[in-house]
Amino acid sequence: MVGSELVGGDPMIDERLAHLYSQETLTAQPSVIREICSLVARPEVRSLAGGWPDPAVFPSREIGRIFAELLEHKAGPVLQYGSTEGLLELRELLAQRLALEGAKGLGPENVLLTHGSAQGMQLAAQVFINKGDTAAVGLPTYVGGPGSFHSRGAEMVGVPVDGDGLDMGRLEETGRRLKKEGRPIKALYLVPNFQNPTGSTLTLDRRQRLVQLAQELDFIIIEDDPYREIRFEGAYLPSLLALDKAGRVIHLGSTSKILTPGLRLGWAVGEAGIIGRMAQAKQYFDCATNTPAQYIFLEFLKRGLLAPRIKANIDHYRNKRDWMLAQLQRHFPPQVTWNRPLGGFFIFVHLPAAWNAMDLFYEAVASDVAFITGQSFFVDGSGANTLRLSFSQASKEDIEAAVAELGRLIRARLEKG
Amino acid sequence: MVGSELVGGDPMIDERLAHLYSQETLTAQPSVIREICSLVARPEVRSLAGGWPDPAVFPSREIGRIFAELLEHKAGPVLQYGSTEGLLELRELLAQRLALEGAKGLGPENVLLTHGSAQGMQLAAQVFINKGDTAAVGLPTYVGGPGSFHSRGAEMVGVPVDGDGLDMGRLEETGRRLKKEGRPIKALYLVPNFQNPTGSTLTLDRRQRLVQLAQELDFIIIEDDPYREIRFEGAYLPSLLALDKAGRVIHLGSTSKILTPGLRLGWAVGEAGIIGRMAQAKQYFDCATNTPAQYIFLEFLKRGLLAPRIKANIDHYRNKRDWMLAQLQRHFPPQVTWNRPLGGFFIFVHLPAAWNAMDLFYEAVASDVAFITGQSFFVDGSGANTLRLSFSQASKEDIEAAVAELGRLIRARLEKG
Repeated sequence: MVGSELVGGDPMIDERLAHLYSQETLTAQPSVIREICSLVARPEVRSLAGGWPDPAVFPSREIGRIFAELLEHKAGPVLQYGSTEGLLELRELLAQRLALEGAKGLGPENVLLTHGSAQGMQLAAQVFINKGDTAAVGLPTYVGGPGSFHSRGAEMVGVPVDGDGLDMGRLEETGRRLKKEGRPIKALYLVPNFQNPTGSTLTLDRRQRLVQLAQELDFIIIEDDPYREIRFEGAYLPSLLALDKAGRVIHLGSTSKILTPGLRLGWAVGEAGIIGRMAQAKQYFDCATNTPAQYIFLEFLKRGLLAPRIKANIDHYRNKRDWMLAQLQRHFPPQVTWNRPLGGFFIFVHLPAAWNAMDLFYEAVASDVAFITGQSFFVDGSGANTLRLSFSQASKEDIEAAVAELGRLIRARLEKG
Repeated sequence: MVGSELVGGDPMIDERLAHLYSQETLTAQPSVIREICSLVARPEVRSLAGGWPDPAVFPSREIGRIFAELLEHKAGPVLQYGSTEGLLELRELLAQRLALEGAKGLGPENVLLTHGSAQGMQLAAQVFINKGDTAAVGLPTYVGGPGSFHSRGAEMVGVPVDGDGLDMGRLEETGRRLKKEGRPIKALYLVPNFQNPTGSTLTLDRRQRLVQLAQELDFIIIEDDPYREIRFEGAYLPSLLALDKAGRVIHLGSTSKILTPGLRLGWAVGEAGIIGRMAQAKQYFDCATNTPAQYIFLEFLKRGLLAPRIKANIDHYRNKRDWMLAQLQRHFPPQVTWNRPLGGFFIFVHLPAAWNAMDLFYEAVASDVAFITGQSFFVDGSGANTLRLSFSQASKEDIEAAVAELGRLIRARLEKG
């Protein structure tokens, strides 16, 4: 798909100035997730499509109380512009928090507050990517990474992802080949924990190998880690930021999955020089991050409200994961496979190899059931037989009914041959 | 200044991955305004530097009451992700509001909510600018426009600004010459009302000529209009958006000067096709705009709270403008000239032609007085003898004392010859 078809798919929109558009505009892909979610936004649809958090776990009372107190005591600074880097005290606390996770020696100069972690990806791409540079991503990967790279005109290269995360052998092979060809990998984007869309987590061995490879092949790593704290079982693994000694990791965090996404608050962490460059770019991207969101999150941290909130979230989502796994076990035939994620929001399903999940999608929507087809997460256009199911937002009742209906549709297809 | 000197001017920061930086990173200029403001952030400084709004006019009680009610009645959507375009109802109301200002026939598809109007500039640059494209700005101009253009690798060309705004004769001459040279102007950025930094307003004749020229020379106009509603006297002029019939204007608005800047809420308005492309780019810039800010502003509009708020702001800032003008009249010698802005936050001062305002700046800072030197607003490096004074945030006492001290320093320099 190219050109004006992309914009909401509306051919009625006259784009009379399209001859002035930038090349990245003309070649941009819309987010298929977003397109699908708006397509199935009817209330009668039982949707496993969107990967949004469950409003049932939004701490609205605590947020309301904190904001009221903030306005009572310091309305001026809370409603004023803030610095581009963000609140110093919040950056200090985030650096301390990362130290507890193993990333030692960080201070506020290593932390930039961003308007969601998406902005961190974009600023990292702005700082590092020239048009035509090579950027590596997983096959599959969350679309935000490739989207940011594309906005800067990068060429994307895919590296397979399996149940243990990115395949390091394939990354090394690809990296060495591209280096020889004079188009070395400059940046790699990944979600190390409970990846969107596969739910897979990069093993410790692979993490150690990845930071070595970044040094050997001279690339930077954008570590997008919004799900880390939503771990249902097993030990927390050190972040790439904690393992790296060469200043090659830009680590991105977010309040979206642990508190609430509407605040649009994220942080980018890395070497002070890089963070300074990202802050400089941010001056022209949006001047500064929403101030109330920063103060509200700061109070959550200072008052010790975040840890119990995260614990409650883990319990809530683990319960929903287990429920979805039980429904899959019950309703899906053995010709279909899926994984058991140790955290996060997603389960990834493989249909029989020759199938196209888009066919199933249209049937599902006709039955008021929705999911996300997997192909849009593969920058090489593969993955046609995959789909992503999210257990984060749907009710248990909807999960049960939707999985049952999908199972029925899959069995019917199998019977047809 | 190039290279690592730029980052906070801190040579101690080791930038060991600088060889991987993008060209735009290596050539980016930090915001001098921001550097100066952080330099003079000591409490004893009487600062006329920052152009921030006055917290005295932030409606914190109304914001607090509205947010509490929103959390009471619809916490889920208020704290959840929103759509990339922003709240439909708010976009509808903004389109209706623009119709009252003369821009007819707009609907929600013409409006994109942004994280401050700065993001609107950046998204417009993303949609239109390829590396090496020519972008036109005023001499002087607010730094956000050139900063956004530069982030996409544009070449900047300056067009003189006088008391009536951008000089249309010079724009036409420059535009025709550049077109002949094969590097036509693709985009023009301006602040039409009470421009930052000069306070000057583009006349109606020039507005009409500008939209003609955009059509004749085939460029787009980014109309950054945050001060429009802070008009102290005289009739409101139609926006370029209202005058244009060719879909060439992207109009940017913001709550920062009429409500409060910490919300970081702006809007971009233009032809549906362009707005759709900007929304598509925004998917990867930050997914969506802060949700509570959108709901709070929506309630301000629906409850009729914005109009009285704006009226109170106008009275407040007019009073401060008059006060600063009176102090200038009293303390500045006749060798120094300044304008009388009809709105906004700024007065622009011309020192004698051979002077460098930076010399005065260092003397002023030693006397605990601050302003912004004008040169950083000129993309051609001219304007060394100019400075910007802001009356928006300083108290009347500070305005009086700071202007008196500047007058004393200027007279002392004149006496030295």
